[in-house]
Parts: sequence; structure tokens; C-alpha cells
Amino acid sequence: MSVYLHDIPLPDAQARLKQTLQDAGLWRVLGMETIPLDENALGRVTAEAVWAKVSSPHYHASAMDGFAVRALMTNGAFPSKPLTLQIGPEAEYVDTGDPLPDWANAVIPIENVESLDEHGNITNEIREPASVRIRASVAPWSHVRPLGEDIVATQLVLPAGHVLRPVDLGAIAAAGHEEVKVARKPKVAILPTGTELVPIGSKLKAGDILEYNSLVLAAQIKSMGGEPTRYPITNDDSDLICQRVQEAALDHDLVLLNAGSSAGAEDFSAKVVERLGTLLVHGVAVRPGHPVILGMVNRELLIGDRAPESLTPETSHLTPIIGVPGYPVSAALTIDIFVEPLIARWLGRRPLELQTETATLTRKIVSPAGDDDYVRVAVGKVGDTLLAAPLSRGAGIITSLVQADGLAIVPRGKQGLEAGEKVKVRLYRSRAEIEKTILCIGSHDLTLDLLAQFLAERDRRLASSNVGSQGGLMAIRRGEAHLAGSHLLDPKTGEYNILYIREYLPNTPVKVVALVGREQGLLVKRGNPKRVQGLEDLRRPEIRFVNRQRGAGTRVLLDYHLNLMAIAPEHIVGYTQEEYTHLSVAAAVASGRADCGLGIAAAAQALDLDFIPLFQERYDLVISKEYAEGDLLAPLFILLADSNFRGAVSQLTGYDVSVMGTIILEE
Amino acid sequence: MSVYLHDIPLPDAQARLKQTLQDAGLWRVLGMETIPLDENALGRVTAEAVWAKVSSPHYHASAMDGFAVRALMTNGAFPSKPLTLQIGPEAEYVDTGDPLPDWANAVIPIENVESLDEHGNITNEIREPASVRIRASVAPWSHVRPLGEDIVATQLVLPAGHVLRPVDLGAIAAAGHEEVKVARKPKVAILPTGTELVPIGSKLKAGDILEYNSLVLAAQIKSMGGEPTRYPITNDDSDLICQRVQEAALDHDLVLLNAGSSAGAEDFSAKVVERLGTLLVHGVAVRPGHPVILGMVNRELLIGDRAPESLTPETSHLTPIIGVPGYPVSAALTIDIFVEPLIARWLGRRPLELQTETATLTRKIVSPAGDDDYVRVAVGKVGDTLLAAPLSRGAGIITSLVQADGLAIVPRGKQGLEAGEKVKVRLYRSRAEIEKTILCIGSHDLTLDLLAQFLAERDRRLASSNVGSQGGLMAIRRGEAHLAGSHLLDPKTGEYNILYIREYLPNTPVKVVALVGREQGLLVKRGNPKRVQGLEDLRRPEIRFVNRQRGAGTRVLLDYHLNLMAIAPEHIVGYTQEEYTHLSVAAAVASGRADCGLGIAAAAQALDLDFIPLFQERYDLVISKEYAEGDLLAPLFILLADSNFRGAVSQLTGYDVSVMGTIILEE
Repeated sequence: MSVYLHDIPLPDAQARLKQTLQDAGLWRVLGMETIPLDENALGRVTAEAVWAKVSSPHYHASAMDGFAVRALMTNGAFPSKPLTLQIGPEAEYVDTGDPLPDWANAVIPIENVESLDEHGNITNEIREPASVRIRASVAPWSHVRPLGEDIVATQLVLPAGHVLRPVDLGAIAAAGHEEVKVARKPKVAILPTGTELVPIGSKLKAGDILEYNSLVLAAQIKSMGGEPTRYPITNDDSDLICQRVQEAALDHDLVLLNAGSSAGAEDFSAKVVERLGTLLVHGVAVRPGHPVILGMVNRELLIGDRAPESLTPETSHLTPIIGVPGYPVSAALTIDIFVEPLIARWLGRRPLELQTETATLTRKIVSPAGDDDYVRVAVGKVGDTLLAAPLSRGAGIITSLVQADGLAIVPRGKQGLEAGEKVKVRLYRSRAEIEKTILCIGSHDLTLDLLAQFLAERDRRLASSNVGSQGGLMAIRRGEAHLAGSHLLDPKTGEYNILYIREYLPNTPVKVVALVGREQGLLVKRGNPKRVQGLEDLRRPEIRFVNRQRGAGTRVLLDYHLNLMAIAPEHIVGYTQEEYTHLSVAAAVASGRADCGLGIAAAAQALDLDFIPLFQERYDLVISKEYAEGDLLAPLFILLADSNFRGAVSQLTGYDVSVMGTIILEE
Repeated sequence: MSVYLHDIPLPDAQARLKQTLQDAGLWRVLGMETIPLDENALGRVTAEAVWAKVSSPHYHASAMDGFAVRALMTNGAFPSKPLTLQIGPEAEYVDTGDPLPDWANAVIPIENVESLDEHGNITNEIREPASVRIRASVAPWSHVRPLGEDIVATQLVLPAGHVLRPVDLGAIAAAGHEEVKVARKPKVAILPTGTELVPIGSKLKAGDILEYNSLVLAAQIKSMGGEPTRYPITNDDSDLICQRVQEAALDHDLVLLNAGSSAGAEDFSAKVVERLGTLLVHGVAVRPGHPVILGMVNRELLIGDRAPESLTPETSHLTPIIGVPGYPVSAALTIDIFVEPLIARWLGRRPLELQTETATLTRKIVSPAGDDDYVRVAVGKVGDTLLAAPLSRGAGIITSLVQADGLAIVPRGKQGLEAGEKVKVRLYRSRAEIEKTILCIGSHDLTLDLLAQFLAERDRRLASSNVGSQGGLMAIRRGEAHLAGSHLLDPKTGEYNILYIREYLPNTPVKVVALVGREQGLLVKRGNPKRVQGLEDLRRPEIRFVNRQRGAGTRVLLDYHLNLMAIAPEHIVGYTQEEYTHLSVAAAVASGRADCGLGIAAAAQALDLDFIPLFQERYDLVISKEYAEGDLLAPLFILLADSNFRGAVSQLTGYDVSVMGTIILEE
């Protein structure tokens, strides 16, 4: 009934595209242009080797301010036995860069001579004394830059396919050029399609989807050295899409059709490609991103009457088209996987290669066995170990790409990897940046977002991963984090965290510092339509609760109070509905999925909810002692005493900064 | 008599500049601007943290094409016991991205249902069947993207000071923004000064110096995120320079004055800075680059009547000025050292940090003890060892920066480093690129330039270093090169290379492959004014010869024939004048520094010299057996059999390609 995708392995799909482009004469530099040698040439790719037209220097040049001399005539000069050279026949003043007189073959720097007047007395006249006195001989060609010292005419200055950097521009100029031949930029059309799409900045109603893929794609194309054109949104109408594709194919080297590349009722891309040319591939065994379409549009199959404005005379009548999946992570990765190598080929440069490092996985990854699985990971160095922590897997979660420090690739044939296994990670960030990353794994608090901001100004990156307070302590124990946010209540003493640290971290010395005091309470819809007053209302069958995950400090707090109040969890509707952050709980309430949840005031404020304060709790940072004294965390401790940071935190509702920086435990 | 520079240590100079800028309120982000969220935002730096205005998705969205259901109602469905749901009250078709109906809390993918018509028969109707049959239950929230799955309103999307990448633009858009606040680009004026300067592309006469520093500086500023303005060349006239500096200081955040920063007769920069404001530093203990000037121009000290067009209301009345040394390597490094951190601060981003690796030095470095010495190095990996080979040290040699793979820094207090010592190298290239570098150390031949070009097209980089044939064999022995170019004549047998390989590489198995046959002969000025016919003419006292360095194959060839002809080296004028390449020998003849030299025909042709053919010799590639079979060198062997490459080589004068690829020795 449905059209199923036939996923083929990635290398096969790439090979099929390459072969088709080769057959069409399109697997090569598309064309070249001559551009002036100015700073706009930066990043362009040389289309031909650059050979030197002139030498540099193009004459024997003085390398110092001083006197040009014949080296032979300086023989016999010693500190105790100076020698005098007459200006004119025997010595001539030269500035740095001046040509040597024909008769000279060395330069004596000005600071090594004494200038004399016509009477043989020392004078201040620099350029035209009567004579100069020297107290040392010089070797031939001393302080001279001989002709061609830098560049000899005819030598290779730069090969073709070289991405121009600032110094390259200088070398090309020094070699006598004022222009440079570069590969022309491949023109790439980006066609967003979908009736549900609305332009960025639109006021949103349910079902609207912000169209920002074309922005990301255009920026990717630009950063690869191509020239993107963003088309307006086309509705899901096969004819309209066909028309747009044809129009775009006429003036572009590549058409990116986004999305409709899957096999749903409104997915027209494959049919459009079949109608306008050849469908090469529909479905590639890569996650995320498998509903990729590769094809060729035949520009001679014109429906309208517009004549093709060929890009260059040498172009083929075929324009490659790629159907890019709609989920933003899939879309961006499709461009990296299929388009980057193509742009590289069209420009004649090397494909981009990310630096690869081996890291240790902090969590198990489960992968579909048939696919190459691209897993976004956060990477940090804890002690000597480079760790890769898998991020959200959802193809719709663009923030997972923003937060990713790299990609771990689980190859086809593997059904995943175990925690602790070594994995190759393609890094998005430099090692230097990663070594300035503070890994904070544990309970989430809005203050951590602010902390990230303040740390960024102090040359540190805070990568925080939310696994609840207990999960954070476990991460500290396994050496997978520098610190953890924790607010675990001890039901016996009313004290926070200490008991749990003794239990979970018996052999891991830590330093515990208070970050904030904060209010916990019930989050309800604005106006509190169901009149919730406290935890006792959770017994009411019409009240749908949303909970935090097991291990979260808020969950412990809830269970503690439920126990005191003798409320059985099984009597609470929604007790098993678990969310991982305060904001997700707030979102569940805001969306009507639940009537209330326990959380912090800031989360209520963020989503415009009412807040019923119930308890005050302390949120601590549990810091592995091993790193507490180190350079990496030093800016964190400075911030805990910084009045600007305190001020910013106290702007958030429901926080008490008076405890900030108090040392709770130091082992 | 002369004004001497007082070099101060680099950290002191940097600290003095920073303190002055702090005092002037200029050590901060200069200003911000709001720009549209499009691909031109790429590379800009966020001036404020970006917080989410909306959630993404902003409603519960279907993650698949399928039917929205109440999870509870699917309980009890099994493969053998299907369950039918009525369209309307119990199931509703949704496309990927559609909002869930209020009553639904899960989606069943379309491929997991059977559509039924009103009679209960299977139908092809996708969207509006009468009912659907399911054979498995679904968990609540299956195939649903809950509100805020990606982004929750109010969360931190990006911190301030973040350099925008393509995916970041998507995340900002997803968070409900259509604009982004970024740091404004610092405006940098670049003022080339010097009466000897001529614009690039000029027809050159002796003493003219091509002004390309401003191009390199502008490109550097641009790539750092600044906005450069290149001024025309100003002659060496203190008043003119003052006027230009003042003009530039009014509209720019920074003035770069190039050059005149030294202490020579025509070096006005320090005086100009003193006249217009404050001279902070004159001379920094860095090589190359020590005659650096740091200062502040006081815009209130206006000579003309033009009112200052303040850049932004908040700017100070001071504009920093940097006197940049004239030598191109010094100039470029000065920008990296002093300007990059300043631009970074003004943009609020992290300063650029090059990846640092530890490499083994192949040659001794001698450094002035008082200076931080920045040594350009070629970096390659031979076996498991990362090697750093120092390049030309001259500050005038811009090609040394072009060819450099990194910078080795010999810190103040050290008078250099020994060969074999470990050295930290800041890499300009990625490790991936360096691992594709073929290190060729030995005798130079023009064919190697062509080979580099052809290898670049095959994803390899040829880094060739010219130390003569014997030097190349020694490099192979020490494991410092993959291959060496060699043309060492055995005076006894007339055979090339074999004898020397037996002698120098007794324990290093090699493969020797012929590259070319080539003519050696005497290079003389066009028209042969001194009527040189052969080596016997070298006895004539008026003939000035230019020699190759000891160990070079051409030198061995010369000595062999001199010996046969019983010509004593001491009777040859210029025998001790050594050059390191064929082209340098040709340049010496072309410039009139010598009357003739022994070299190859191609070099004579390159510099428009006459060539007197004397001998034919074979030029071989000596390849360490260890790498001969590997992946790295595979493209080299392909090229030796490639007709395009042969064709290109045979275009050069004096080459015989018939021997190319012949295996001379395989151990």
C-alpha cells in the first residue's frame, strides 16, 4: 500500500551519484574565473597552479639600514684596528630594501659603523658622512637579500586546488600577479516545500512548522564555498514543485529539495525527480537521514518555454538533485555526507575532514544493524580520559547538533556499542576547546544556563547533561564528570546530599559547594483552574500529575512528602509519567497534558504558569576533589563569589543566593 | 647616534597594551548590532545570550505519518488478535509534523495498520478509511514529539560570545527569533607607508618593493572577523603619515601602520605615534617581528578641522595604533600575536588557538637568547614519528609562511634546540592533512614542483625540502623522510646512486625508481657574453662561477669532471660560492653575481639564460622500503605511469621521460 523506501548502503549511494556525475562530465571543477587579488579572494580555491612571474626580491636588496660595501675591502678590520671606507667609491648608504650598487656585495648595519666628517671626526650625519669607520670585516653577501631569496621566477608558488589563506595572497602578489584564477562557486538552489511550513519569525499556530532548514542549508553551502539561493516555500503540490525544480535546475549546479523525500502521502520528491529526470537512489542506510533522494534533472525536458541559461558553455544538460529529509538533524547531516564532497570536487579542493579522536562512551548506544548510525556526542576530558556522552537521538532535535562536540559513527553491521567501549569521534571542536569544557552531569537547574553564560566569558564551556541528582553522583563515581548538580534530601535528617554522597561515593573525595536555595512547589495552569492547593490534591482522580524521573531530587522530595502524608503513589494519576527536567514538567502542564507537577518557580515563570510554593531546598554542586583545585574549575569558584553572577541569579524568581559558595563538605 | 629599540618581553608588551585599553574602556565588546537571521550571520559572534522565545515543537506533533490514537484503547491488540479502531472518535490520520488531536496521546505509523472500508475490507484509501486494524498496542507518547522536545521557551539556546555556525542559525530560528544580536565588526585601518613601495601588479624596477603586506593584513583581519580598510601607499613623509593616521583613527577602532616601525633614518612610525598620542612600546623581544610599536592615538589632538565621527557613542577618544614591521613574515606574525587577541576581545569570542602537537626537530635551531623565536616548520609523519623540519628563517621570506605547516616556538632564555629534541608545534594544518603529506628531502628538481601539483589532485601533499642528494639519503637513514630525490654519480662506474645507497643506507632497505633523465650544463647569460664553452673556461680568472653546496649531486658531477680534467677547485673564482637549488644558481647568473654555474636546462629556461649542455644524468627517487608499499605513496606510483604527468614533464626543456618509473633497485 505505502511506497516503501529501499535503503541502500551509504558507500553504494555515494558511488552511484559519483558514477552518474562522471558519466555526465560533472565530476570535476565546474569552471574557473579570474578575480582580483584582494581580501575577497580569501577562501577561494586556486583553479590552476600559480607559477612565479617575477622573482622576489627581483634585485639584490639590502637587508638592513647601513652601508653597502665590497666585502673584500673590509678584510683586516678589527676592534683594535679600525678601517676607514670613503663614501662614494667604497661605501654607500642604503636603507633596508634598497638595491645594492653594482660594485657592492655586502652591507654593514648602521649600528656597526662610526660616521666621520671630512676631518675624520665623528658626526651625526647618517646618510652622507665623508667616510665610515668599521671595526670588523664582513663576509660577502652579509645582510643582503639576494635576488630570488624568497621566490624565483617560474617556481611553483601554489598548486591548484589550494584554499587561499592570507599569506597565500601575499605570495601570489610577490610572485608578480594581480589576479588569481579560482574555481567558480557552485550555485546551489535550496527549495523548501511543505504546506505546513511558515517563514521564520511567523506567529505560530498548532501545526505550523518554522521553515529554517533552508537557512541552515544555505549557511552550510556558503561555508563550504558554494553560492546558495534560497527559494520561497512551495506548497505540497506536485506540479508547483516540478515547476520550481525546473526553474532552479536551469540556473544552478545542484538543486536541494527539502523535504518530501520520505514515502508518505504528501511526499512528492521522488515522483518529481522521476518525472523530470532520473531517480538514482531513494533511501540510504544512514541514521538519521535515511529518506534521502539522489537524482538527475534533465534540463532538456522543459515544460515551459524558457531557454536554459547555461551556467557555463561546458555544462551538461543534467542537473543533480538531492531530496533532503525534513528533520533538521537529518537535513544537516545529509548536506555534510552528500553535498560537501560534491562541492569539494566542483571546487577542486580536498573534502573537509574532521579531526578524529578515540573516546570512551559513557552510555550504551543501540543502533539499527543495517544502518550507519551517526550519534551526536558531547565530548569532554575528565582526568586523562576523553569521554563521549551520547546526546538526544531524535532527528528533530537541532539543539543536539548545536550542543554536539562531535559525531560518533556506529558502522553498519553493529547493533550498537556498550558503555565504556572506545569509539572514534569526529570532532566539531578543537581539542583546545574540549580541554576547556567542564562536564556537569546531574540534576538540572536554570542557574546552570546562566552559569554556562558566565563561564563562556571566562574561557570555559559548561556542558551539562541532565540525568537527575543520583545519576550525577554516579557519573562522578565513574569519573565521567567534573561536577554534578544535586539536591537530594535525606528524609531522616532533612539535610541535603551528604547522606547520598557517603553512600554513593565512599571512595571518591568530593568538595560540595552550595549553589542556590530554591523554592519547590506545584506548577499549575495560569489561574489554577483545578484549584490545586497542595500535595493532598494529587489524590483527586481528575487531577493528572506529571512526575520527574526516578533518582531526580525533586522526585525524592515528592516521595518524602507523600510518605509523610501517607499518600500512595498508585492513587496519583500520572505518577508514572516521567519528565527529565523542570521545564519539561512545566511544558507538560502548559500543554494540558497534565494538570500539575512538582518543580521550581523559575520553570513556572518561564512558561507562564502559576506556582504554588511548598518547600525550600538547597541545590549543591558536588565536585570531584581531583578537579576542584585545578585550573579548569578555577573560574567556577571565582563566579560563585562574583556579584554580577549573584545578581543575575537573583533576577530569576524563587532563588535565594545567600548560600551561594558556602562550602558544605570538603573531604 | 642611532635610536636603538628597547625590546621588551612579549608578555610585558601584551600586558601594557591590555592595561592601556582597559584604562581607556576599550578592553571589551565594542558594540552590538541586530542583523537578520540569514546565511550572512555565519561567523558573526553573539553579543548576548540567546534565550528561547518559543518552544520547539510548540505543540505535540506526530513524528510519523500514521494514525493518532489513545494509547489506552490499543491495549489488547496482538498479531493474532487484531483490534479495529473507528476513524473519527478512535483514530485520525496525521502526517509527520501534524498536531495531535486533543484526545490523542500516541501515533501508530501507517505501515503498522491495515486500512479498512465501511465493509471491513482492506482498502487503499490512506487518509480516510472507515477504520483501521492494528495488531499491536502502543505505549503513550509513542511516535510523538512532545511540546518542547527540542527547545523549551526561556531556555538558553546559545551563550554570548559564540561564533555562529550553520546549525546555530537553525536553533535560533527554531527558538522563535528572526534576528540575532551580534558584536559589531571592529574596523581596522591598514596604512602602508614607504616611498619604495609600489602597488601589486606594477612593472618593477630595481628598488621597487611590491606592497602586498596590506593585502595580507586585510585578509588576516577579515578572517578574524574584523572589517579592514586598505589605504593607498603613503610616502615616507612624517607630516603625510601623521595626517593619514589621524584620518584613519577617526573612523576606525585600530590603526595598523606598516612599516617604518624600526629605528632607521626613514622610520617615522614611532615619532608619529609620539606626536599624535602615546608610545607604549617600541620593540618586542620576538623573532621575527621585534620592531613592533604599540601606542594610542588621541583623537582630540586634531590638526585639521574635521570633527570626529565617533564610531559609536560609547567609544573612547583614544584609538590604538600598532606599528607593524615591514618584512612580510614579521608583519603577519605581529597580527597573529597582537591583533588577533584584540579582535577576539572586541568581538567577545575566544582567541583562536591553534592545535598544538609535540614533534621531533630534524635540524638544530639557533635562537637569540633574549627573544621568543617563532620558527616556521614543515610537519610530516614518517612512520609513527611526527617530524618538524625548520624552514627558511628570513623575515622576508613569505613562502616560508605559505609552506609552513606550523610554528615551533623557542621560548626566551633558550638559545635554540638540538636536532632530535621534542618541540611543541602550533599546527596550521589538520592532523588529517599532515598525515597525507609525503616528505621528500634531498636534491631539488623542477619535476618535483609538477609532481606536487599532480599529487595535490590525488589527495596528497608533497613537502619537499632541498638539502642535496646526500642530505636526502641521510634523511632516509634517520627516518626523517619518505623519499629522497638523488642524482649521485659514482665516479668509478658511471652509475647513479647505487654506490651511495650501499654506503649510506646499509641497514635501510629502499626502493629506487627513476624519475627523469636530465641534461646538466653551464648556465650563462643570454648571448653568452663571456664565451664560455665548457668546464675548461672556469680556469679563466675573469669567469666568476657559482657552485652548488657540498653533497649536491650537481656538485659531485662537477668535482668528478674537474678531477678528470685536472682543474683545481682553488683556481676557479667563485667555487666556494654555494647555492642550494638550480634556480638559485640561475638567479645568480641572471643577476650578474656570477658568469656561469652548472645546472639543468629547465633552470636556464626559467630565467631566460643560455644553456651549454655538457652531460646527461639520471635523477632517481630513493624511497624507504617501509613506506614504498603503503597507502600514502600509492598515488606517487600511479603518477609515474600516468601519461598526463609524463606529458607535463616532457614539456619542460631538457628532460627525458623514457626512464620514468623504471625500478633501479628493490631490496
